[in-house]
Amino acid sequence: MKLTLPPRVSLADFDAALKKFEAVVGKEWVLATDQDRDVYSDIYAPGSEEEWPASAAVAPSSVEEIQAIVRIANEFKTPLWPVSRGKNLGYGAAAPRMPGSIVLDLGRMTKIHKVDPDLGYCVIEPGVSFFDLYEHIQRNNYPLWMSVPGNAWGSVMGNALDHGIGYTPYGQHARNICGMEVVLPDGDLVRTGMGAMSNNQASHLFPFSYGPSWDQMFTQSNMGIVTSMGMWLMPAPETSLQMTLDIPNEDDIGWVIDTLAPLKISGLIDQSIFVPSWLGKIVLLGQRGDFWDKPGAIPEWRVQELLKEHKLGYWQVSLRLYGERDVVRAKADVIKKAFRKHIQADFLEEWWQTGDPVNAMDTTMGVPSAVALQMGDWVGGRGAHMGFSPVVPANSKHVMHQLKRSRAIIAAHDVDFYASFTIGGRFANNINMLMYDRDDEAQVLNIRKMFNALIEDARKSGYGEYRTHLGWMDPVADTFDFNNHALRRLNEKVKDALDPNGIIAPGKQGVWPSAFRGQADKGVRS
Amino acid sequence: MKLTLPPRVSLADFDAALKKFEAVVGKEWVLATDQDRDVYSDIYAPGSEEEWPASAAVAPSSVEEIQAIVRIANEFKTPLWPVSRGKNLGYGAAAPRMPGSIVLDLGRMTKIHKVDPDLGYCVIEPGVSFFDLYEHIQRNNYPLWMSVPGNAWGSVMGNALDHGIGYTPYGQHARNICGMEVVLPDGDLVRTGMGAMSNNQASHLFPFSYGPSWDQMFTQSNMGIVTSMGMWLMPAPETSLQMTLDIPNEDDIGWVIDTLAPLKISGLIDQSIFVPSWLGKIVLLGQRGDFWDKPGAIPEWRVQELLKEHKLGYWQVSLRLYGERDVVRAKADVIKKAFRKHIQADFLEEWWQTGDPVNAMDTTMGVPSAVALQMGDWVGGRGAHMGFSPVVPANSKHVMHQLKRSRAIIAAHDVDFYASFTIGGRFANNINMLMYDRDDEAQVLNIRKMFNALIEDARKSGYGEYRTHLGWMDPVADTFDFNNHALRRLNEKVKDALDPNGIIAPGKQGVWPSAFRGQADKGVRS
Repeated sequence: MKLTLPPRVSLADFDAALKKFEAVVGKEWVLATDQDRDVYSDIYAPGSEEEWPASAAVAPSSVEEIQAIVRIANEFKTPLWPVSRGKNLGYGAAAPRMPGSIVLDLGRMTKIHKVDPDLGYCVIEPGVSFFDLYEHIQRNNYPLWMSVPGNAWGSVMGNALDHGIGYTPYGQHARNICGMEVVLPDGDLVRTGMGAMSNNQASHLFPFSYGPSWDQMFTQSNMGIVTSMGMWLMPAPETSLQMTLDIPNEDDIGWVIDTLAPLKISGLIDQSIFVPSWLGKIVLLGQRGDFWDKPGAIPEWRVQELLKEHKLGYWQVSLRLYGERDVVRAKADVIKKAFRKHIQADFLEEWWQTGDPVNAMDTTMGVPSAVALQMGDWVGGRGAHMGFSPVVPANSKHVMHQLKRSRAIIAAHDVDFYASFTIGGRFANNINMLMYDRDDEAQVLNIRKMFNALIEDARKSGYGEYRTHLGWMDPVADTFDFNNHALRRLNEKVKDALDPNGIIAPGKQGVWPSAFRGQADKGVRS
Repeated sequence: MKLTLPPRVSLADFDAALKKFEAVVGKEWVLATDQDRDVYSDIYAPGSEEEWPASAAVAPSSVEEIQAIVRIANEFKTPLWPVSRGKNLGYGAAAPRMPGSIVLDLGRMTKIHKVDPDLGYCVIEPGVSFFDLYEHIQRNNYPLWMSVPGNAWGSVMGNALDHGIGYTPYGQHARNICGMEVVLPDGDLVRTGMGAMSNNQASHLFPFSYGPSWDQMFTQSNMGIVTSMGMWLMPAPETSLQMTLDIPNEDDIGWVIDTLAPLKISGLIDQSIFVPSWLGKIVLLGQRGDFWDKPGAIPEWRVQELLKEHKLGYWQVSLRLYGERDVVRAKADVIKKAFRKHIQADFLEEWWQTGDPVNAMDTTMGVPSAVALQMGDWVGGRGAHMGFSPVVPANSKHVMHQLKRSRAIIAAHDVDFYASFTIGGRFANNINMLMYDRDDEAQVLNIRKMFNALIEDARKSGYGEYRTHLGWMDPVADTFDFNNHALRRLNEKVKDALDPNGIIAPGKQGVWPSAFRGQADKGVRS
């Protein structure tokens, strides 16, 4: 990819900044060739990668190096786009929101500062992947389980900071964050929570600061660069029970949610409950062409055939309980009783106990896996996906309303429907996987048009995205419109105070520093 | 109390501001007589109430009135000290940190905007008391339980914003906050979280914003005035089991914590577990003079006599489990097995099930009560208390270390020892109730001296206060010293950006706006 300079930065200043970066991190960790830029592009880009081009990347290996880079960036006004491991797939991967930003690649920061097996937490740097942390825990035989997203090859920290979700009792990953170390846009280094006291013993245990608490402000955020943070880990249970049940019909999701959500809210079920539609299973069995050889969405009659052929329900409920055997047994009985009001079929039960082997693909046991990525191959070509991800109240009224409307829009655009609802508490994340061949221009245009329609339709019903792709960060920010966009004013006011030169991740989630506010209209919106 | 003007505000400007306030709220809701000022003083003040004098109070009844008041305060540079119901007892009550601040009394804002019995949350204004909300829930027969602090006559919102704690599964009150409406220091009105979208359906269900999340920044904070917020409420359980056990010796707290904390962290016990020392029971039986008639701390031999006489342990563990009967039964068995490794005695068990009467004093069932206030009478005279409240890791090593040291300091100052540990997760709040006769100058001086010693000693061991009295907000803020007080710099930078005139709660938790930074040294520190 050819060089795109950051807005209002001359080639001379850009080069001077890179030279200074080299002095900090070494020549080999400043990456600015055409090939380097390709590496930091969105490999699933809905359109040309050149819509979101990085100008270069710089990869520090320490907090001090990050501070030095930030100071240089302030000197030359060169915007930085921090990524942990750059695996934000479906939402932009490592690519920056603002064209020409320099990717600050934190992938070399791979220290696991601490794992406390008794109090159940770790302190990690941004480059630590789910696989890294998993191996570290296994190697040391710590009695701790992780919570991992469907596709787990990214960064533990990056995923949590972007409000990623998993399928264990620790499935709201940002809620496990406790105590951060952050390089602020002026190069200052702050610790949040109790860690603001040197040598505090509860830095990663108590979730508040004395005074205002900042951890959550640094999530989905461009207010600073998190260089390490505490995350709570789940104590390994003595036993665990998986309960799986196929649910036959599309409309059954209504009673399923009304049955599961109260059990989740009361704490009887403590995991984040993942309920995917049938396509989530079929994508693991082959490519689209193996099941339907015509363009356009698979028609409903063929869907019904496929469900029969593969003995699948329209939805699958796969629960997991954790804990002491008798407690788990008693909980399972409550769940079965609740389901029996609606369905004859019994759950398939699989017990696990300490010492048993762990299924290497089981995200509900916190085992990292990249199997879910297989859906990228569904349509063929250079396959890709984007996630349309509104948050809905966890009840049938809202789940059905959202389902019916987005399903109709997706059908109208002749795209295969693949939805899931993850009940994280009183809400469900409705993630719609939109898969496309990124070399097929018509498909890409269709997906983009549909994406706009989905956002606008959800807004009308009062549902907001919890996360979105680079190209839609501004349109989604626009939907948060209360009091003529008061939240944007608050975001911008704090952003400008902390980052007067606007050098950290301009445009992230629609938050623009005054220095680059004019850039909001650049990048795809339709 | 005579008038103390706010710093750098002339009497003419002060009077002009009050006049304008009157135009907004009506004459009767601007309170500026000597008697009015008395009402807003710290009724438990460790010293003269005149150390923390309010100059006046203004009591709005709507968001629009608050916005108007804030704009007037900016015009005349008059600092406002917002209180919800002003019952922050032991930490300053309604009194302001900076002498001469005008109390913004939100006690008239008593709307309960919503209670959702199915999704389990309420949306409330600052003036809603625990009793108000409790009555509202009872009157409507909503199947919801609250979480209340030991003394529950304050504001639900105010308590949560100040990181108050309760003794149910929802005992970390600030963690139940979800979606706020806030008047910013410039009078702008913002909604956080999903509520930043007009008419969003998940405003009080999903705990994050799209982009940076702000809820926690507005806790223990002077960044804005929260005018309403969502709080999660616990679904009423089908059954509940109370398990009570007296623990004989002081040092037993070590194994008690090491037994309970893992069960709390694993989720087997879901409540915040309150473990008070013996004096917590004795204060309910009478005054100090009924048990020991000499000055100075009750000597250890007499303590041992009292424990025998009243059949008390040095500590009491009173657990409560919630849920379906068989699940609760199975959980109880796990707990009993764990305790049997250390103690012969059995728990006293009391089952409750839906329909049974509720013990009106039972905070673990979310019933508000003011019984705990009785300890204010312990020493006699105009009795009062202050809380010394460091946060420690929830294990025996740290709990014993903190206990031994603070106990020695308190003994050295010849004051009765009353500690509790509340296990809220991976940490415990160690609350030491320091009781005194506020008309006895020697006692007050002794308490103040001791308080400084306790803070400094805890800091040396790496333990920080989670909350403190007005007079120690700065000394405690000083203990958060990482990187030469980086947290203070972050706090101040955001404070100055949002509140350039420094009109909202200057000095709250040691956060001073630049306009009043010179005032930090005023008010008691030793």
